[in-house]
Amino acid sequence: MPVRAAAGPEIEALVQLLARLPGLGPRSARRAALHLVKKREALLGPLTAALARVGETVRSCSACGNLDTRDPCFVCADPDRDPAVIVVVEDVGDLWALERAGALSGRYHVLGGVLSALDGIGPEALAIARLVERAADPAVREIVIAVNATVEGQTTAHYLMDELKDVDVAVSRLAHGVPVGGELDYLDEGTLSAALRQRRPF
Amino acid sequence: MPVRAAAGPEIEALVQLLARLPGLGPRSARRAALHLVKKREALLGPLTAALARVGETVRSCSACGNLDTRDPCFVCADPDRDPAVIVVVEDVGDLWALERAGALSGRYHVLGGVLSALDGIGPEALAIARLVERAADPAVREIVIAVNATVEGQTTAHYLMDELKDVDVAVSRLAHGVPVGGELDYLDEGTLSAALRQRRPF
Repeated sequence: MPVRAAAGPEIEALVQLLARLPGLGPRSARRAALHLVKKREALLGPLTAALARVGETVRSCSACGNLDTRDPCFVCADPDRDPAVIVVVEDVGDLWALERAGALSGRYHVLGGVLSALDGIGPEALAIARLVERAADPAVREIVIAVNATVEGQTTAHYLMDELKDVDVAVSRLAHGVPVGGELDYLDEGTLSAALRQRRPF
Repeated sequence: MPVRAAAGPEIEALVQLLARLPGLGPRSARRAALHLVKKREALLGPLTAALARVGETVRSCSACGNLDTRDPCFVCADPDRDPAVIVVVEDVGDLWALERAGALSGRYHVLGGVLSALDGIGPEALAIARLVERAADPAVREIVIAVNATVEGQTTAHYLMDELKDVDVAVSRLAHGVPVGGELDYLDEGTLSAALRQRRPF
């Protein structure tokens, strides 16, 4: 007997698209589709509208590179942000993560990736020139480099440091150390060494 | 410092809706939203269109209770299905699961739940009268009761058996036994006893 689709073609098409979302496999995409068709008024309708609204209006912020439905984005447009601080991140997802932490009230700069000889990503592929330009604004006093603690991330951080050395701003980067709630026994030697070297008075 | 939204309000609204899908938590919903806004042309657009199409047209099949964009549904409308067999399931999800297995070429009947004194679900809340009516069609020769192997499912199966006793059809139910690929050591005693009792010649 041939393999058959489980649902009608329109619902199957929806399942295929949902399965392309990160975190949803083929099986959970099917469950999600079923949930949606059962909650047509309460969920499917509002989700369709929300997707259409975002799809029509989402754009890259011309100032920082964040993705939002307006330009400048809601962070750049926020008058309560400290104009003296710019936090440099690799990706929009990192910006969102830092926003959730809500620990710093500055603005952001999305590089759009990291330097990678392997993947052929050079400085011109990243928003580095634009960062140097923004850093030259006299209102800006600190650049916080918040790239990932990977080899490529650290290479990129050093490159940025170099590019910013003629600009009159302080350049800092995220602290290395023990994650809050983390157990020493489960941490790698690199993190433990960094936490010891950068120990702070109690 | 107050808790801040990680993204703009429209994107946050999308995240909240995605988080209501089964299988997606708040964190993975955010990741899914980011993926969508990054793949606007390739994924967000087609997904919006697929949701709109399904949302506008999905309905309950008036014959079997399946959810599809047409009525009768793609199963009931399929002329190649065996008109002699009706498989009774609790829910549309079970129908889709059996369709994926593709082991039987009959049609279906969705009860819309199971009898449950605790939840106040009596026979009139389920599509039982309609099943008896369909079973009375002379073309129908077998009713396969494929409800879940739970207490409520089995209670419902017995009730259906009783309702169908005056109708001239054979009534069968799914076999109990060892799941294909299953290891005996991990199976409960009920399943093992059933598999032994219902052992078959090799």
